[in-house]
Amino acid sequence: MTEIARGLRDVILTETRLSMIDGTAGKLIIAGFPLEDLVPYATHEEVIYLLWNDRLPNKGELEAFRRSLIENRSLPETTMVILRAAAERKLSIMDALRMGVDTLSLVDPEYEDISKEANMRRGVRLLARFPIIVATYWRLLHNQALIEPNPNLFHAANFLYMLHDEEPDPAAVRALETYLNTVIDHGMNNSTFTARVIASTRSDMVSAVVGAIGSLKGPLHGGAPGPAMDMVFEIRDNAAKSGKSVEEEAQIWVKTRLDAKTRLMGFGHRIYRVRDPRADALGTAAEKLFEQTGDTKLYTDARVVENVILKALEEYRPGRGLNTNVEFYTALVLHGIGLKSQIFSSVFAISRVGGWIAHIFEQYAEDELIRPSTTYGGDYDRQWVPIEDRV
Amino acid sequence: MTEIARGLRDVILTETRLSMIDGTAGKLIIAGFPLEDLVPYATHEEVIYLLWNDRLPNKGELEAFRRSLIENRSLPETTMVILRAAAERKLSIMDALRMGVDTLSLVDPEYEDISKEANMRRGVRLLARFPIIVATYWRLLHNQALIEPNPNLFHAANFLYMLHDEEPDPAAVRALETYLNTVIDHGMNNSTFTARVIASTRSDMVSAVVGAIGSLKGPLHGGAPGPAMDMVFEIRDNAAKSGKSVEEEAQIWVKTRLDAKTRLMGFGHRIYRVRDPRADALGTAAEKLFEQTGDTKLYTDARVVENVILKALEEYRPGRGLNTNVEFYTALVLHGIGLKSQIFSSVFAISRVGGWIAHIFEQYAEDELIRPSTTYGGDYDRQWVPIEDRV
Repeated sequence: MTEIARGLRDVILTETRLSMIDGTAGKLIIAGFPLEDLVPYATHEEVIYLLWNDRLPNKGELEAFRRSLIENRSLPETTMVILRAAAERKLSIMDALRMGVDTLSLVDPEYEDISKEANMRRGVRLLARFPIIVATYWRLLHNQALIEPNPNLFHAANFLYMLHDEEPDPAAVRALETYLNTVIDHGMNNSTFTARVIASTRSDMVSAVVGAIGSLKGPLHGGAPGPAMDMVFEIRDNAAKSGKSVEEEAQIWVKTRLDAKTRLMGFGHRIYRVRDPRADALGTAAEKLFEQTGDTKLYTDARVVENVILKALEEYRPGRGLNTNVEFYTALVLHGIGLKSQIFSSVFAISRVGGWIAHIFEQYAEDELIRPSTTYGGDYDRQWVPIEDRV
Repeated sequence: MTEIARGLRDVILTETRLSMIDGTAGKLIIAGFPLEDLVPYATHEEVIYLLWNDRLPNKGELEAFRRSLIENRSLPETTMVILRAAAERKLSIMDALRMGVDTLSLVDPEYEDISKEANMRRGVRLLARFPIIVATYWRLLHNQALIEPNPNLFHAANFLYMLHDEEPDPAAVRALETYLNTVIDHGMNNSTFTARVIASTRSDMVSAVVGAIGSLKGPLHGGAPGPAMDMVFEIRDNAAKSGKSVEEEAQIWVKTRLDAKTRLMGFGHRIYRVRDPRADALGTAAEKLFEQTGDTKLYTDARVVENVILKALEEYRPGRGLNTNVEFYTALVLHGIGLKSQIFSSVFAISRVGGWIAHIFEQYAEDELIRPSTTYGGDYDRQWVPIEDRV
């Protein structure tokens, strides 16, 4: 009881049925399914349902669940006031999302009811509005006319529709669903942990989810899929200017960075010592997407850059196990869907909220207050000196 | 690495200079001062300054600090819109506080600046508005005219002024300051931990503080000082009706509860095995307050009830170390100041935010992502079945 467990890295908080990470084998299980057997096939609603109910829905259940998500897309007038005020001040999308979701207590028709059933409905009401808030705020930020939700489109497709004001390509929707499925849960990451810490006081679901958004905002958590893709764009630009191949320019680019000991975005992970399985799932999704949309050039170039960097990392930092991480392929998939890098973190939130809510259910069932200890490193016997006598 | 540390009770997260709890000896140190040597003498601003700077301010520093708090009392129009909408729906004060504080990103004049200095000023801007939001919301909830802040009154006094629309009695202000000083920090409690978990991602101070409010809302954390006092009132009512003494009625009351194995509010604490030192500090504050305001009857009755219950607990649950906790005397002090029990949790938040912000500073300096592990208790090899084939 005297050793400090800074960061809690090796502390096991609890047992979960939601996901299992094997960082050594590079395996990820989502509620009983190996990642790669689930995420390319399931709609996003099926994976949310799976996490919340520990089983896949049948056809009727899926339809009812999708319908309930569609019915909970309207934003309260107060939420709109906040989003407009935030857009005027050019606040980040994550801040706007946090403030917007926070106001959803205002449209809780069963505010006092904290039963499991009410919390299931509350989860639907919250999750349904994540993409609505993000798409609405994006258009406010860019002075574009707001688009009403389309009741004929499901969760992921409606997000793209409200963002771009056009019916999305089915290939883009499929790629987005695969992305949302892939990052929905990942062990006791910081935002999930935040949600559980708050829920452990028996506080309400809005409070727990708002705290989790605040955590995901942090640069050490939400990650940097934007920069990972910017690197590919920069190398392509260099190649266009110099007339050299992308491969040659990638070699020059990475040598400069590694000589200067710069950290490369998109490579390496705190947990995975081998290839992040999510990178594979997203790599496959990206390949399919670019094939179907016809623009395979960016995909090919990204793979070329990836291979050059992996080879260079093996040479410069041998044995460190630095592999392509989820950020690199997140950037490729989301870019392929037509999203800008500034929106990436909030699309991550649109997915992860499904996991947060599942963990909140687990925490409510566990019902154990989370409260670690500290050691004291300060003084013990300071003397009170009245203000008049202080120098 | 295989034992589950549910609740993290025996896990030491970090070293802090802010407070030290010795639950066995019943001692509490606040930034180097034994609780009882500090809280009855210091203004609340001095204790906040102490926690944020690891030393007491001199006269000039205290004046400047108080001035900066006075200058940051205005609420943005958007915050008012939310508070009005919340009052219309009769949302709890803690929900309104969480939503209100969340919008303060809108009045951050140095939004992009995350330097230590900017965060100190940000802390002032946030903390200054806690009592403003609570007092404003209280009056909105009760359909009372709103009161402008009084620039001639300091932090605690201005809160009472805005709440009650009259210059507060100096004895009430002193009692409130002692309360605010007493509960400002208490080790790695759940809301403080929440703030640190969020800040550990390098997320912003508003996100961390909003998460902490959501935690403090929880019944297992914010506690129940309301019920502790209601017990005293109930016993007094019984005595008035029966003609028996308060002591006799207290004996009847507690026997009924203990025979039925009901948990008594205001007694026992997760950490303290002897008397909670905060109970003593607040007991003394209550005694002084009731002496000065002349109404010593409630104080005497509360002490009589306390003694009867302590005696009964020793008899019914011997060796359990159940002592009067901070909630019992919180209720007595806050009631003596003229506050209603529905506002108690948010007055706790008005105090604790000083500790949260101090811990956020410590966490930023430590800069270590907090992320525990889990074990997996789910299935491993579920088979994907297309929706058409599911039953």
